[in-house]
Amino acid sequence: MLTFVGLGLFDHRDISVKGLECIRRADAVFIERYTSMLAGTSLAEMEGFYGKRVVVLAREEVEQDPERLLARAADCEVAFLTGGDPMVSTTHMDLRLRAYQRGIRTAIVHGSSISSAVCGLTGLQNYRFGKSCSLPFPAKNWFPHTPVEVVAQNLSLDLHTLVYLDIQKDRYMTVAQAVELMEELAGIKGFSIPLYVGVARAGSDCPAVAAGNGEKMRSIDLGPPLHILVVPARLHVVEQEYLEAFAGL
Amino acid sequence: MLTFVGLGLFDHRDISVKGLECIRRADAVFIERYTSMLAGTSLAEMEGFYGKRVVVLAREEVEQDPERLLARAADCEVAFLTGGDPMVSTTHMDLRLRAYQRGIRTAIVHGSSISSAVCGLTGLQNYRFGKSCSLPFPAKNWFPHTPVEVVAQNLSLDLHTLVYLDIQKDRYMTVAQAVELMEELAGIKGFSIPLYVGVARAGSDCPAVAAGNGEKMRSIDLGPPLHILVVPARLHVVEQEYLEAFAGL
Repeated sequence: MLTFVGLGLFDHRDISVKGLECIRRADAVFIERYTSMLAGTSLAEMEGFYGKRVVVLAREEVEQDPERLLARAADCEVAFLTGGDPMVSTTHMDLRLRAYQRGIRTAIVHGSSISSAVCGLTGLQNYRFGKSCSLPFPAKNWFPHTPVEVVAQNLSLDLHTLVYLDIQKDRYMTVAQAVELMEELAGIKGFSIPLYVGVARAGSDCPAVAAGNGEKMRSIDLGPPLHILVVPARLHVVEQEYLEAFAGL
Repeated sequence: MLTFVGLGLFDHRDISVKGLECIRRADAVFIERYTSMLAGTSLAEMEGFYGKRVVVLAREEVEQDPERLLARAADCEVAFLTGGDPMVSTTHMDLRLRAYQRGIRTAIVHGSSISSAVCGLTGLQNYRFGKSCSLPFPAKNWFPHTPVEVVAQNLSLDLHTLVYLDIQKDRYMTVAQAVELMEELAGIKGFSIPLYVGVARAGSDCPAVAAGNGEKMRSIDLGPPLHILVVPARLHVVEQEYLEAFAGL
């Protein structure tokens, strides 16, 4: 059996009690750290807390050749750990399908996700979020245009946009970098973004939330990772008050 | 200090380890059960599990007159429990603002939420969801028209719609009831919804997921609560395969 266990937002104590029980019961525990990562803990801390060895899988071992994982899951209880809530990343859907095709039973233990946590942290209302998007680091001769198109469409419909920021092996995108990039991209399209809300370390004891225009936000330092960005639509009264109280608007 | 603690999806073991520690440390524990509810547990089970007395607050004691809650939070550590992830319901934003205005420190411990859990359960991709909506029980001479308008807009943008179903004191809306209502509303607007995906008991050991057209889904029995509905846009290949494997499409 293969159980996808969501680790939640920030450190090893963000897992649910149910997820922790599942890991402690498992014969083998695997983790992937490329779709998300727990910035507030280490592999050693996790292993100590679970009382289990945790094997880190590379992207290829999850997406191209998950044989090692599936072979274990065919015979015994395997827990596969991911940050946040499992399956928000599409790559894991493919893994669950492969398990199904091999006749391996699967289950999901859900975890807290940034996609709902931003509502509480920013006060921006859940039902006012439109389509979300991801902002990758630009590569040589390549610029990500989709995020600004998604934001423009959502703003035209009076909807907020959650912008997932790039996480790479050796770097993560900050709110300041993201705003810099968004301002540049919006400029190219002759389009202006009136307000940004940045969030850092959601789920931790010291989350940071800041709201402001491009000028303020492109130079803001929200501290250690992970960071995420929201482009709000026109604010409702309570949203405005909330950002004034908790995000220095 | 007032800490909003998310209980997650289904029973008392869906809370995070961090949330459980917060409750066990608290001087007073309150809960509201009208924005959501844990269908897989009881107040007595929760109290036994936490080792604490849990005081249930009525809607008025949270929204109109939260004095009892705030007076305690001014002096000592108070945990305020809600199903899912706190603050997805807008009413709690107002409560956090009132605490702030009285100089009471606040914090949030996040929990798993149906808004991300549906992705794993249905295989419908997170970034393809548009604005969500709520479907209330119709009242005398009143019919909820907004949900179908939201669905129509999302379908025109090729986006999925998450439809939250009504929870009342003595009843909860089932997927079958919701589809019946949506079909009727769509009919009035001369509009057709090609596919529905229903989910029941997300977060439990026996979640049910079913996909089909209005005719199939208006008579489907997904068993005990809670239920939620998704109206998908055109399916991508992996979404289609996933629903075939895990939702009987």
